[in-house]
Amino acid sequence: MTSLNDLPLRDDLRGREPYGAPQLDVPYALNTNENPYPPSERLVKALGEAVMDVAGSLNRYPDRDAVALRGDLAAFLNADTPGAGLTTARVWAANGSNEIIQQILQAFGGAGRTALGFEPSYSMHPIITGVSGTRWVNAFRDEDFGLEPERAVAAVVEHRPDVVFLTSPNNPTGTALPLDAIEAVLAAAPGMVVVDEAYAEFRRAGTPSALTLLDGHPRLIVTRTMSKAFAMAGARLGYLAADPAVIDALLLVRLPYHLSAVTQAVARTALAHGEELLGGVEALRRERDDLVAWLRAEGLRVADSDANFVLFGTFPDRRRVWEDLLGRGVLIREVGPPEWLRVSVGTPAEMAAFRTALREARGAGTENSEESP
Amino acid sequence: MTSLNDLPLRDDLRGREPYGAPQLDVPYALNTNENPYPPSERLVKALGEAVMDVAGSLNRYPDRDAVALRGDLAAFLNADTPGAGLTTARVWAANGSNEIIQQILQAFGGAGRTALGFEPSYSMHPIITGVSGTRWVNAFRDEDFGLEPERAVAAVVEHRPDVVFLTSPNNPTGTALPLDAIEAVLAAAPGMVVVDEAYAEFRRAGTPSALTLLDGHPRLIVTRTMSKAFAMAGARLGYLAADPAVIDALLLVRLPYHLSAVTQAVARTALAHGEELLGGVEALRRERDDLVAWLRAEGLRVADSDANFVLFGTFPDRRRVWEDLLGRGVLIREVGPPEWLRVSVGTPAEMAAFRTALREARGAGTENSEESP
Repeated sequence: MTSLNDLPLRDDLRGREPYGAPQLDVPYALNTNENPYPPSERLVKALGEAVMDVAGSLNRYPDRDAVALRGDLAAFLNADTPGAGLTTARVWAANGSNEIIQQILQAFGGAGRTALGFEPSYSMHPIITGVSGTRWVNAFRDEDFGLEPERAVAAVVEHRPDVVFLTSPNNPTGTALPLDAIEAVLAAAPGMVVVDEAYAEFRRAGTPSALTLLDGHPRLIVTRTMSKAFAMAGARLGYLAADPAVIDALLLVRLPYHLSAVTQAVARTALAHGEELLGGVEALRRERDDLVAWLRAEGLRVADSDANFVLFGTFPDRRRVWEDLLGRGVLIREVGPPEWLRVSVGTPAEMAAFRTALREARGAGTENSEESP
Repeated sequence: MTSLNDLPLRDDLRGREPYGAPQLDVPYALNTNENPYPPSERLVKALGEAVMDVAGSLNRYPDRDAVALRGDLAAFLNADTPGAGLTTARVWAANGSNEIIQQILQAFGGAGRTALGFEPSYSMHPIITGVSGTRWVNAFRDEDFGLEPERAVAAVVEHRPDVVFLTSPNNPTGTALPLDAIEAVLAAAPGMVVVDEAYAEFRRAGTPSALTLLDGHPRLIVTRTMSKAFAMAGARLGYLAADPAVIDALLLVRLPYHLSAVTQAVARTALAHGEELLGGVEALRRERDDLVAWLRAEGLRVADSDANFVLFGTFPDRRRVWEDLLGRGVLIREVGPPEWLRVSVGTPAEMAAFRTALREARGAGTENSEESP
């Protein structure tokens, strides 16, 4: 039998493991930061009808530039962030923000180029960077998972990366970035600056979006997704806002007809039902804040969160805690800095199950679940 | 205003134009080798219902490995090519065969590596190769657009490419490849050999598929698509068959959750209605053979075709002929070797319009539309 080692795989991929949170069938899936509120029956029907509307011409290729969808996304961003002033020409969409990130690296990275991020952060940034042939440089966040402008600028000045990844709110820590840190990086960076705002809609009141910085910063790219607040993880729709010249660059690397007619129709229908889909965001914010307070009351360390997940710890043997919770039907994520765990914010019932399971897990293994010194 | 030149674009992308056949609204679109037969009302309804079935959980991520869909595709290939003996573990799917090709290059190409193809051939092979950072080497087909095994092997021995692209039937010439040419390349090639069979279902009786070579050739990859014979260009579903180890390699480079739950559901529904969707293939084959005969009777040169398009010529000023046809509502493709044009095979009505328009175009500009010496 042939094994992967027998094939002429790219050298830098040898020994790697495929990315991925385990996809397990559990009562409480709190591991991939999904929105727990499913589409209503009304929306399910609307989605089916929207697909039927386009299905009659599925023998034809879709609109290669997804113009109507991009217009809808621009309108959504303008409503989300007053003053953003976005237009179709300044918005681009792809199959999930992973594909958005890949296209950015294909256009602005590549062999001999460097991308830099501040860890702990989204693990796909270095993975997609590597696959694109771009060199990855780890810089680091502050102790509290924030990012002081001076620290960020120092890393950028030292490494002169072609692409900088910032994340706000950051995954897996939940930490939002103040605009002055982003502006400082923009002023210092020689290349493109990507602000990954996958969780932006969950940010606390008063936390700004980098969308407000787009004017006058043609090397700034703000990425968003419909997978999180928008409750459409299964539909795979990521997008970005940037200068129109950035989109001209992405047209050189995107795969023609990358977005199916069905994806475009589903995403447009979801956007038209945005009020419903985003209706759970307020509840998730409250649930998150309650969860943070509860974890702290339990004597655990908890990172401030502007997202729909919470990073908490610390556990000298976090694997044991993770496994213990899984044994109780609660799947969370073993990710981020050592000794920390990440839990997605779910429904009140899911959170109650998590709290019960965590108490039991900590009680069951006192020697391991104590806060580390 | 910022222009693309002001951005830190990758050097090798500078000056490039985005790929793409013009997407024009014309009475007769015969330019992208679409299947002209749309899904029936029954299938449209089934597609809508299939999407409604998954829409209720679109807040959750899709099956990252698309296992059920890959099983259906394996079953389809086994029916298409008796003896193929395919299983879920030997089939992989992505958003169009473009993404399949990109994943292959990401796993087996990259900086310092080389991919080779035999032109004239599918123009996306060199484009995706370039975007992946892989060096592209042009080799050439024979005068009659075939590929003698000796000629193919000589190019492989000379360039020692990490990835070889073969196409059968070839786009834009329609030429199918005998198995001995593929076997000779497999024996000589140091790396992966990709046989792009996007148009395989249109091949004439007796023309073999490279699927029958998979056993014992772990470096062979056969790619297929649902965009052409399967009449699902708008759904974007490409796939491949290969050794399971090849799929292990692709798992290292694919974007997690690359295939949406909707795409998986739509493709599975289309496969379940395969008899209907492929029902037009016989008619298209006959229409193609009639078109080849008619073009030859008109005194034109025509490449033998095993696909759903025909390459014909020669025209010293093919642009003028292309524009003249467009002016008459018939959009064909200006692609392939100089002085040749490609027309997709459509319905009898579309072909009648094409024939009328071509006669008029040739009559209107006799000095330019004569066969070149």
